[in-house]
Amino acid sequence: MPAKVAHFTQVEEQVFEDPSARGVKVRWLIKKEDGAENFAMRLFEIEPQGYSPHHTHDWEHEIYVLEGKGVIRIGDVEHEVEPGCFAFIPPREPHSIINTGDKPLKFLCLIPYK
Amino acid sequence: MPAKVAHFTQVEEQVFEDPSARGVKVRWLIKKEDGAENFAMRLFEIEPQGYSPHHTHDWEHEIYVLEGKGVIRIGDVEHEVEPGCFAFIPPREPHSIINTGDKPLKFLCLIPYK
Repeated sequence: MPAKVAHFTQVEEQVFEDPSARGVKVRWLIKKEDGAENFAMRLFEIEPQGYSPHHTHDWEHEIYVLEGKGVIRIGDVEHEVEPGCFAFIPPREPHSIINTGDKPLKFLCLIPYK
Repeated sequence: MPAKVAHFTQVEEQVFEDPSARGVKVRWLIKKEDGAENFAMRLFEIEPQGYSPHHTHDWEHEIYVLEGKGVIRIGDVEHEVEPGCFAFIPPREPHSIINTGDKPLKFLCLIPYK
């Protein structure tokens, strides 16, 4: 598989598949089809007042906040985040992400393949 | 292992261990000791005229450019990058990263654990 170098705007933006999310879009920047066998890089954009629902799953998240302002809730703890913040959310920890600002909240969210 | 949420400036910056690199510093934001079993998130900062040497290894890179301007060379191909650019560098592809701007080049570079 060849290398892939691009700008995120060259990757199609999709509405996030979870129907209980609000105002969440995602771009799969690096995925299995690109040759990434171990983990995927996705770029999320949540509109003001949008959120991902409080949910849980068997895999971890590694997150890096690029733009905007929000809250990452993990279990019952709310963490205010801004650009430059990052988060490791272990497997099976209930979590949600809320845009608390008045501009889009953009962040990378990487997940393992396994 | 509990979740970890922080700002990148809260993580110690280290001189990059490769002696043939020039002007490269790294912060290990999310690593095995944080509970990340599958992949690690590092934030690199390369000073103007700095570079990582052209090198190769058995694991892939997933890169996202945060600030600055540079070139990612993969094999014999040079890709100009700016904030918002990302790269998948497959295992065993020779690669190097050069800061071609007059400000620090900052990017995330994630690697698998295995």
